Amino acid sequence: MSVESNSGISEAVIRRLPKYHRYLTDLELMGEKKVSSAKMSEDLCLNASQIRRDLNCFGGFGQQGYGYNVSKLKDAISKILHIDRQYNVIIIGAGNMGRALMRYPYYKGMGFKVLAAFDSNPALIGTTTSGCEILDISKIEKFCAEHEVDIGIIATPKEAVLDVADLLTKLGIHAIWNFAPVDVYERDGVAVENVHLNDGLYVLCYKMNNL
Amino acid sequence: MSVESNSGISEAVIRRLPKYHRYLTDLELMGEKKVSSAKMSEDLCLNASQIRRDLNCFGGFGQQGYGYNVSKLKDAISKILHIDRQYNVIIIGAGNMGRALMRYPYYKGMGFKVLAAFDSNPALIGTTTSGCEILDISKIEKFCAEHEVDIGIIATPKEAVLDVADLLTKLGIHAIWNFAPVDVYERDGVAVENVHLNDGLYVLCYKMNNL
Repeated sequence: MSVESNSGISEAVIRRLPKYHRYLTDLELMGEKKVSSAKMSEDLCLNASQIRRDLNCFGGFGQQGYGYNVSKLKDAISKILHIDRQYNVIIIGAGNMGRALMRYPYYKGMGFKVLAAFDSNPALIGTTTSGCEILDISKIEKFCAEHEVDIGIIATPKEAVLDVADLLTKLGIHAIWNFAPVDVYERDGVAVENVHLNDGLYVLCYKMNNL
Repeated sequence: MSVESNSGISEAVIRRLPKYHRYLTDLELMGEKKVSSAKMSEDLCLNASQIRRDLNCFGGFGQQGYGYNVSKLKDAISKILHIDRQYNVIIIGAGNMGRALMRYPYYKGMGFKVLAAFDSNPALIGTTTSGCEILDISKIEKFCAEHEVDIGIIATPKEAVLDVADLLTKLGIHAIWNFAPVDVYERDGVAVENVHLNDGLYVLCYKMNNL
């Protein structure tokens, strides 16, 4: 379940990188050229020495007295996360969550291309959401043979999750992003991220009671 | 933006608590009575001394040579997060994401009660999803005056987010859980959690390239 097995970088560090990436993307859009670890620390609510340690894991990109070059650091983090290339995505389950994910603007245009969605509901099959067609789940094997699919997003009811995860594994998909409310365990050769929406809600409860 | 201002506990610690809570809930369901920090460390991919340090922030619940009592530790974390009581929730925006959140089984039955959803689309107003009615957004002020609403979930298109956040603030709602792809900044007296679905997707890209 750990991401650190082969890379030597701890999971905690990897999980902070998307936050740095998002922050640097915003700075870049605002025209900022450089940023200090002190400013990053303040804006991101993280310890400045931790930020420096994190970025040093990858060789360090800062210069004493200057700080970090925003674009270079962002590009370096993209490379580390391997989000500097395109990934083909399919979505299994085209209910409300699946259709929300077909529309989700944040990864579309970021190198993630949703090729198709799959469902077993005849009322959905053949319809299109955000330019992406919903296909019969029985067609998934042929589809995956004909397309290079990297990532499968699971957005099915919980009863179907484990069968779908097994199917995606059999079809040679490299990664599963699971939104269903049952965890999928990592399996040989297939990376897995289970989304736990509740975690943020619990942090929110803490915050509202400690403001 | 930090959660540590008044509590003295760092945001990083608070953000690990839902993970501990989820893990302990699973252990409890499997009938486990106690757990060591070593086992927690292995199962959660976190450093054992970090786990002990985290739990010591709240006074410590472990006993040397015994480990932690699963139910007591879970209850203690529920108290710290303030999820040991009921919260009334409304959802603004009843598109695919909003309706997925009306159905989401993980917080329903966990003390979070979705009272209603609001939208401006006439095709949705008056319909019901998972026993929850979608009301005209123009009724939200009256609704909030008549009900004790704790949390507002924003699931609108990005153009509407900031107006909705201002409206919720004016209506005296205590917390905003924002799923729209534009960040809401924390405002006086209102706690905010912005959901960044992409972060998990980026970690997944790292994992699939480092397996």
